[in-house]
Amino acid sequence: MTIPRKRILTGDRPTGRLHLGHYVGSLKARAQLQHEYETFLIIADLHMLTTKNERSDIDQIDENARQMVLDYFACGIDPELVTIYLQSAIHEVYELNTLFQNLVTVPRLERLPSLKDMARAADKDEMPYGLLGYPILQAADILTPRAHLVPVGKDNLAHVEITREIARRFNYLYGDVFPVPDALVPEIGTLVGTDGQAKMSKSLGNAILISDDAKTVRKKVFSMYTDPNRISADIPGTVEGNPVFIYHDAFNPNLAEVADLKERYEQGRVGDVEVKEKLTIALNNFLDPLRERRAMYEADTGFVDEVIYNGTLRTQEEARATLFAAKKAMGLTGVWNRIGRRVEKRQKRLEKQA
Amino acid sequence: MTIPRKRILTGDRPTGRLHLGHYVGSLKARAQLQHEYETFLIIADLHMLTTKNERSDIDQIDENARQMVLDYFACGIDPELVTIYLQSAIHEVYELNTLFQNLVTVPRLERLPSLKDMARAADKDEMPYGLLGYPILQAADILTPRAHLVPVGKDNLAHVEITREIARRFNYLYGDVFPVPDALVPEIGTLVGTDGQAKMSKSLGNAILISDDAKTVRKKVFSMYTDPNRISADIPGTVEGNPVFIYHDAFNPNLAEVADLKERYEQGRVGDVEVKEKLTIALNNFLDPLRERRAMYEADTGFVDEVIYNGTLRTQEEARATLFAAKKAMGLTGVWNRIGRRVEKRQKRLEKQA
Repeated sequence: MTIPRKRILTGDRPTGRLHLGHYVGSLKARAQLQHEYETFLIIADLHMLTTKNERSDIDQIDENARQMVLDYFACGIDPELVTIYLQSAIHEVYELNTLFQNLVTVPRLERLPSLKDMARAADKDEMPYGLLGYPILQAADILTPRAHLVPVGKDNLAHVEITREIARRFNYLYGDVFPVPDALVPEIGTLVGTDGQAKMSKSLGNAILISDDAKTVRKKVFSMYTDPNRISADIPGTVEGNPVFIYHDAFNPNLAEVADLKERYEQGRVGDVEVKEKLTIALNNFLDPLRERRAMYEADTGFVDEVIYNGTLRTQEEARATLFAAKKAMGLTGVWNRIGRRVEKRQKRLEKQA
Repeated sequence: MTIPRKRILTGDRPTGRLHLGHYVGSLKARAQLQHEYETFLIIADLHMLTTKNERSDIDQIDENARQMVLDYFACGIDPELVTIYLQSAIHEVYELNTLFQNLVTVPRLERLPSLKDMARAADKDEMPYGLLGYPILQAADILTPRAHLVPVGKDNLAHVEITREIARRFNYLYGDVFPVPDALVPEIGTLVGTDGQAKMSKSLGNAILISDDAKTVRKKVFSMYTDPNRISADIPGTVEGNPVFIYHDAFNPNLAEVADLKERYEQGRVGDVEVKEKLTIALNNFLDPLRERRAMYEADTGFVDEVIYNGTLRTQEEARATLFAAKKAMGLTGVWNRIGRRVEKRQKRLEKQA
């Protein structure tokens, strides 16, 4: 007898190409976890609609998703191991979302600072109702394949807590249908941007993309923010919190070289150029096999689409089973079945009379 | 060429048998409007879940719906003319609900006093998220059959306004898909309860049910609140605002009798017993043909279920067409189709190569 593997649900909004911050924050962990857990990766386009819902945004979903999934594969996520699906194509997610909305209160959601941040970032003067319900839609996602584990960044921990509350509340009201999923926060949380800002982000223009070519990486590294007090190479510099060294630590496997650079940097015995040159080499060495995998999958036109297509069909099946279990537990299936049975009975009676 | 008739969407939460307040406030108007408009009557069980979502509430939906629909038929709503359907069995309503939630803001909904009243009435300390979204779910209902007209009580006018805003916002963002529906407030709004309270309501115990038998009606009329200052029949009484006379005005077709009773009441020349005896007769005369129709439909076991069943199938078809139009306009259909087309292309390419 084989014991079914535990499930993971995670994913991204389809906003396009991913960067090293995504690699450090989630993709690396996903590529490891895929061997241990059955992994569902959601292309969360309905979540995108909570802040970006113009026709022009929607028209980019499939191309953005394609680029994003190529980045997944580049980072070692294996199309044979994971299930990737398009959220908006799963009917049941909308249904679970609507049903779960009665299990959470408005003040509970209003206590989440993350949602206010998102509203601000999206330039919304007033909170869209759908955005306030973002964590409920996430609960619908996580509970659709009845996932046990949700790898998230620290800023999303509170959202998983909402899912846990919804699962518990549902099970309490209607009987055990959903596992109460655990959050998994990967060790390294976030990667600073090339400008030294707290978080790498495409919209801040401080990101090194997984799909950047060697020349672009070089250019971005050489424009990187370092120690601002160090106006010439002979001034001792600060290594701590210095993005160039954070990147060296994260991506340069030559520990001796990194230690040597740090020492000389602190003593004012190395120029920025050398530090950045070596970082460029390290990053490009790191990215080369990723670029190769990316190019390989990209050359097979339609492959990514097929992965999404098949993953969506597979998830639709899972979703059907989950929604059925949920509606049965709630009693909604019973309501409809009783109506149907009485119709049948009447038909039989009328046939007999005729 | 026949011009398709304009459509009406209205309905009730399945909370059971209806009363004379429902007749005056909506059923009478519906029975008239059904000849002029194509009428969709929703059994709004998903709306019920926003305040009552325990398993025991859900288990009563079909029986409550059956009793309610029998009351519809009793009041002259014609099963041949209208489409009656179960909201929770329409997949597309959940989808439209989720999509529309991005078109309204939280402060807009929080400005509606009706929702706070509902939360209070349902003994909720904190507003459930789903209850705050009540008018969005209503918009999904109204726009599912793309209704043009929504007969509502005054207290629900503001909800129809939300539907209008959603329809306009959707059409503005994605192109003309939805008619902007008009509200229709029937002339007589509400009927006072037998206890003189502002509104007849089953939960207040001040209701005369459409299904009450003659004896029950008599009992309820004789316990009715009248003029409290009139402790004996020879004291002049007040007709204005007196529930007994409000009911006489609403249900006694013998205008001369009513005028005579009012005159004598104001002069202190008639006892409550005579006023109530004549009201009992008037009400039972009014209710007799309704009871007859109700009994006829009830005797045909399964008939109401069949009306709901067929109406739901019919509405599912409408809903499919509407959701398709909405998703096509938004571009979501295109996203999925492009993915599918690229999969097809790849398959053909691989076949050729093989």
